[in-house]
Formats: sequence, structure tokens, C-alpha cells
Amino acid sequence: MGEWMMKFTKMHGCGNDYVYINCLEEKVDNPAELARRVSDRHFGIGSDGLILICPSDRADVRMRMFNADGSEGEMCGNGIRCVAKYVYDHHIVEKTGLSVETGAGIKQLDLFTEQGKVVQVRVDMGEPVLAAAQIPVVSDKAEVIGVPVEVGGKTWEMTCVSMGNPHAVVFVPDTAGLDLISYGPLFEHHEMFPKRVNTEFVQVLSREEINMRVWERGSGETLACGTGTCASVMACILTGRTGHRVLVHLLGGDLTIEYEEKSNHIFMTGPAVTVYEGEIETIR
Amino acid sequence: MGEWMMKFTKMHGCGNDYVYINCLEEKVDNPAELARRVSDRHFGIGSDGLILICPSDRADVRMRMFNADGSEGEMCGNGIRCVAKYVYDHHIVEKTGLSVETGAGIKQLDLFTEQGKVVQVRVDMGEPVLAAAQIPVVSDKAEVIGVPVEVGGKTWEMTCVSMGNPHAVVFVPDTAGLDLISYGPLFEHHEMFPKRVNTEFVQVLSREEINMRVWERGSGETLACGTGTCASVMACILTGRTGHRVLVHLLGGDLTIEYEEKSNHIFMTGPAVTVYEGEIETIR
Repeated sequence: MGEWMMKFTKMHGCGNDYVYINCLEEKVDNPAELARRVSDRHFGIGSDGLILICPSDRADVRMRMFNADGSEGEMCGNGIRCVAKYVYDHHIVEKTGLSVETGAGIKQLDLFTEQGKVVQVRVDMGEPVLAAAQIPVVSDKAEVIGVPVEVGGKTWEMTCVSMGNPHAVVFVPDTAGLDLISYGPLFEHHEMFPKRVNTEFVQVLSREEINMRVWERGSGETLACGTGTCASVMACILTGRTGHRVLVHLLGGDLTIEYEEKSNHIFMTGPAVTVYEGEIETIR
Repeated sequence: MGEWMMKFTKMHGCGNDYVYINCLEEKVDNPAELARRVSDRHFGIGSDGLILICPSDRADVRMRMFNADGSEGEMCGNGIRCVAKYVYDHHIVEKTGLSVETGAGIKQLDLFTEQGKVVQVRVDMGEPVLAAAQIPVVSDKAEVIGVPVEVGGKTWEMTCVSMGNPHAVVFVPDTAGLDLISYGPLFEHHEMFPKRVNTEFVQVLSREEINMRVWERGSGETLACGTGTCASVMACILTGRTGHRVLVHLLGGDLTIEYEEKSNHIFMTGPAVTVYEGEIETIR
């Protein structure tokens, strides 16, 4: 037991911000407790959670992510891009094709650099799942694609997709004027979603560009949601609204989603930003 | 113009957190813009604002404080304690009696140390103002002390005090169960307060201990409010509820308030905490 100075880096992807610790050099005994402490936005560093960059015997590097409440998450699309930037910018891995071990399996990433630093990262987000029972969404149909539903006294056209977590995508004429705080919870807690749901509200701008706002289960409106972006573009493709490559405008920034029909995989490309490096006193 | 690494320190007093920059060593060209950038809790460092520690020709040191929106504030009771800790812990000033120049005049501080570091700071907060017209509060009385008022369908016992900013103090049986989000705005925008008002809801625990929650004009509920704590204890003293030395429990921590009858000054004692030191890339 004693005082210990621990280095950390604050990074964000589309405003989804974590404290990153290089566990090839630093030792974290109790990540759940540390996550709760550093995440506090008034008494701590302030973040959506904690991400540990660890050695892996199955991939180039391993990420462990902890939410602000100390619970461990499996994977985070905005976080994994920052992990890639961290290991490349710090010369831990010296290549632009990277594998990262996560709680949801090994993910493949492509790094795009400017002046020797990573600025954008492309992540293979895997296959979308459309089977209603697997999402899960209660329906008399095997897949819920462009189905009208009544929520909050309005009729919405809804498509349901799982990207490892459940999403309901609906289309609106204008995301800016949307009363998300009223409708979001009504979808989240609707009886057709036994495990609740993340809801994306999509405004189609053209065949290659959409606006999206998201209501995440348990969190409310967030600045960005990587899996929600994938689900939204899948819904656009399935209902004939866009092509297979779409630029998505989120409150926290832009993501580009590509759907590859041959492999049935979705690829997400977006920014990774280092805000600052810090050092915090810790006790062990 | 070029990239520039700027050192900063994140500190808080009762959860009221600022980014502190030592302007004896660093140069800040546009503090309003920097305040907006660093305060953002997702894309920046994350704080309630920015405080610059500057040289003074009238006191030991000068503080300039900027809110998260870039506007310059005159004085901050939680911030000035951290300024004192910064200059002492960094050996900029080597004494435990300190003068700090602020936008509200020169303040006198006493520092309490443990193992060579400041842990608590006592600040002379000056004289309370009771004249209704100066606060301002519209009333047929010269001073508003223990006056019943109707707000939100309830009758409250209210005392009004200015500590440089206007406060309305009311007494409640229990701060924990209080519906602050409903009543706070009704006081803030009530026609009896032409410049709006900060409202403190006080539960008296004994003659030397109270609980307090605060609704700040323009900010809503905050974790702590130094001037509001002073106003609350003045209201307790004026209505015969407490003695002249009171421990105040706030959401963000504890402050001790003392009223000195002889000088008619209020003294606030509370913690100052360094969270971490960091370095951020800036452009000039």
C-alpha cells in the first residue's frame, strides 16, 4: 500500500470519452473501483468509463472496458478506435492492420494515419442479426423490417436489428425537432422488447447520407452509438432508402458505415481523438 | 502559430471543479475561448470552468475565473480555496496567510496544511447585505427576515441575503426528500426577484449543523455554492436557529461557516483537492 502516480490518456470517439490506461506499463488492481472513481465528472477525471489496454495471446492487443458504474462491457465501437490510435501513436504496434481482443471476440481494424498519427479507424463490426427472436423483439413476423407500430399515439415505420445488442430503427422527417426525451423511453420500455431496446431516429438526406439521434437503454440520449449507426444503415438498406455506403451525422460527429453483401459484414469508419495525457495519484 | 503543450491541474472544492493554469509559467491568449474548450465534459477536459493563477501587484496572487460558457466571473468561493492550495503546494507562496486579488476585491485566506500540503482553507467572505433594495428583493419591509411567502402553492419562511449575489433562504423539514427541480425555478423566476435569485433549502439538524441544497440561477441544482452557504447560516442566525459557527452538509461535501459579530464578516472554511495534473496540446 502506498501512493502511486499512474499515467492515463483521455481520448474520445464522436464524444464517447474514456480514460485509457496502458496496462503494458501500469498495473490496475481493481478496475471496477477505478472506473467508478475516474469516471466521476466532478470529483474524478470525468469520462463515460475506463478502458484498459492489455497484452493478448490471441490478438495484437486486448481491450477491457468498464462503464462508469464499474460494470464490465464487452465491446465499444467508439472505444476500440481509440485503442487502435493509442497503440499505433505510442509505437506499441507498428502496422496499420490490427487485431483487438474484446469481450465480444477478436475485431479487425484498419488504421488511417496523417503525419504518423492515427486519425480515422475502420472496424469490422460483424454480421447484423435480423431474426426477431434473437434480437429479441416480440412479433408475428420472422423479421421486423419496415413494419408500422404504434408508440406514444403515433405510427412509426420500424426495422429491428441486433448488432450484439438490440436496436429499433424508425424514420422521421427531421431529427433536429424530434421530442426524443418523450418517445425514447416509450420505445425502451415497450412490451414488444423483453430486454428493452436502443432506438435510433433516422432522417434520410440522400442515398448516401443520413442524420441519426439515439436513445440508449439505461443511458438516455447519447452523443454517438456505434452499433446503433450500423443498425440504422442496415434499416436504410433493407427498406431501399440508401446504398451500401452511408455517411451518418450524429450529435458527437460523423461515422461512415459500409455494408459488404458478400461477407454480410458491416464496417464502421470514424475518428479517434487524444484530448490530453495526465497523471493521477492512486493508492494501492 | 504552432502546437504548444500546456500544463494544467484539475482541482475541486466540494465538487465544484475547475481547470487551473499557472499563468506565471504558461501564456493564455484567449481565456474565454480556452474556457469553453476545456470545460466540455465529452470533447474537452471537463470542468465547471477555467481559473487562471496570475501575478498581482496588489496581493500575493491574482485569480481570474471563467465560466464554461466563456463569461468571466468575479469570484468563486470554492475556486479561491484551490488557488490557495495550488500556490502553496507548488511553493509559489511560502506562507499560510495569503491575499488573493479577485474581480470582487482582495480576499484574505488562512491555509491549513497536513504533511506540507494544503487540505483546508478559510476565506474571509466579507459582509452580508440584508437591505432588501440592495439584494434586490421586492418587499414592503426594509429587510426580509423570516417572512412567509407563497411559492408553488406552499407557504415558506424566507430570509434574503446578498453576499455580492442575491440569495433566498427557506427552511424545510428534510432536504433529501425535497422536490428541488419543481420549486427551484419557481423561486428563481418569481417576480419578487428582479435579478432572479439563488435559493437555498435548509434543514436545521442542531444549533451547529445544517443540511443545505441549492438551486443556482442559470445553473439549476449544483453540488455546492460557497456564497449560498454563507447566506444560509446568516438566515439561521438571524432567525435564532443556530449559533455563530455552523457545519453545513452539501451534496458535494462539508463547509464550516463562522460569523464574527465584531467585524460583521463571514468566514468560510472548506477543502481544496488536487485531482490530477495534465498536459494538453493547444494552438496559438
